[in-house]
Amino acid sequence: MNRLLILGALLLVGAAPAKKPPTPTDIVNAAPAGAWRTIPADDLMVMDLKSGGRVVIQLAPRFAPVHVANIKALARGNYWDGATIYRVQDNYVAQWGLNESDKPWPAGVTPKPPAEYTRPLKGLLITPLGHDDSYAPRAGFADGWPIAYSPKAGWANLAHCYGAVGVGRDLSPDTGTGGELYAAIAPLRHLDRNIAVVGRVIDGIANLSSLPRGTEALGFYKDKSLYVPIARIRLASGMPEGDRPAYEYLDTRSESFRAYLRVRANRKDDFYIRPAGGVDLCNVNVPVRKKP
Amino acid sequence: MNRLLILGALLLVGAAPAKKPPTPTDIVNAAPAGAWRTIPADDLMVMDLKSGGRVVIQLAPRFAPVHVANIKALARGNYWDGATIYRVQDNYVAQWGLNESDKPWPAGVTPKPPAEYTRPLKGLLITPLGHDDSYAPRAGFADGWPIAYSPKAGWANLAHCYGAVGVGRDLSPDTGTGGELYAAIAPLRHLDRNIAVVGRVIDGIANLSSLPRGTEALGFYKDKSLYVPIARIRLASGMPEGDRPAYEYLDTRSESFRAYLRVRANRKDDFYIRPAGGVDLCNVNVPVRKKP
Repeated sequence: MNRLLILGALLLVGAAPAKKPPTPTDIVNAAPAGAWRTIPADDLMVMDLKSGGRVVIQLAPRFAPVHVANIKALARGNYWDGATIYRVQDNYVAQWGLNESDKPWPAGVTPKPPAEYTRPLKGLLITPLGHDDSYAPRAGFADGWPIAYSPKAGWANLAHCYGAVGVGRDLSPDTGTGGELYAAIAPLRHLDRNIAVVGRVIDGIANLSSLPRGTEALGFYKDKSLYVPIARIRLASGMPEGDRPAYEYLDTRSESFRAYLRVRANRKDDFYIRPAGGVDLCNVNVPVRKKP
Repeated sequence: MNRLLILGALLLVGAAPAKKPPTPTDIVNAAPAGAWRTIPADDLMVMDLKSGGRVVIQLAPRFAPVHVANIKALARGNYWDGATIYRVQDNYVAQWGLNESDKPWPAGVTPKPPAEYTRPLKGLLITPLGHDDSYAPRAGFADGWPIAYSPKAGWANLAHCYGAVGVGRDLSPDTGTGGELYAAIAPLRHLDRNIAVVGRVIDGIANLSSLPRGTEALGFYKDKSLYVPIARIRLASGMPEGDRPAYEYLDTRSESFRAYLRVRANRKDDFYIRPAGGVDLCNVNVPVRKKP
């Protein structure tokens, strides 16, 4: 192991000489300050595990407004204090939360939200992926989010990429209230337009993806002794200003993002011999970072 | 949590009434014995971790013959006794092994194998995916493997889907010898045709995917105390007959597989409202099971 294997060396080549073809990371590092957009503190949900791990979720009020309003009401009401992660299914999801039979809803929760599985395409400023998508007529990016859409039918949906956060529900027409959430620990595009996606994990997903898998059907933990305790879930806007985490994403309408997208589809740095000439929506990974 | 959330309930509906649209699992359960193909014991590599976990890998000699011959020679020579998993990068790979500077190669190892990144398309009996692929002109299945291919250029490659096992290497033109291997714990299709894929994990991948992530660049563990010790890696053909695990896969040319593929792209069971009408190659998951 004393030979450094450079599989995936994109993270190491920031200092590569200027003549070499840029890596995606080179492009992100060179993006001007004006190409970054701050995520509002009221759209950041911070889950602290009792183990000390932290998971930060960006909420998407423009895509699932009623569900996101519910989730914000639950976070503001400290609803999830003492909740647990009770399901981790390999190559699928990590799921946590409480529901009304565990604890009554606080004020401001809509018990039966509408099926916010898509939203109107109109009003979104889209950067097209530029490659085919298996799950929708088109794929692309809007406001920093990976989305799928139909220009003809006029809908758009947040894509179930790695890290997507969705609302657990029973069989349709139930849509889930928002008290029980999951994070996709694999791309799950077949769930697109069948579940309310309310956000994505932007930091700390390894605190979910590396948890032991549940051994019961669908990855539920066998008994309560295995549940992973959550210390608290809060909105960043409800935390003392000095403690608030702050993040920004690369504007998906910026020249930097467009260059990043081209290079993601055409890797030519030293490790690669044959660029693909294409890329899956979920393999693009919109750059998100802590605010410097 | 006393409400059973059925997200991903495909595993539970084997007993659904006959009138309902079948789930993928229904089709697999109904496949006749003749639709299953036994995996040869000489193509099964069994990695036992000191923790007790087992990871079973199916090797693909038809796709990377020299690399697979190396790997078999290393396994037969007990080369990896005392090796470790030393790198786990989130949403990327788990990597293990030794190289020649750790321990001399046993007899039968080709130190500089050719770049077995593709093989001739000719000779493969292919079931097409039937949907677009972002990384190659075509995608489909051959001998139970997910593959990408070009009918025009005449090549085919094993696709980097979840569980794919590839050969760690330095910058090209190095191709890696086979002493250091990784398992993809995410789909990594951008690596297709840039690395020798030698097989896939068919059982126990959660023993890799749930390991703690390394905190160094590229997910390397910070120090040796964190390395995950491997007890031994053997071929099933080298194990006493009574101890050998045995697996079979659903013949990708069978009617059952074709029906399974159609349903994977068009989920209509109770949970789903809008079938996608398409599916990614890596979201099909060729059924593999322990031999009954």
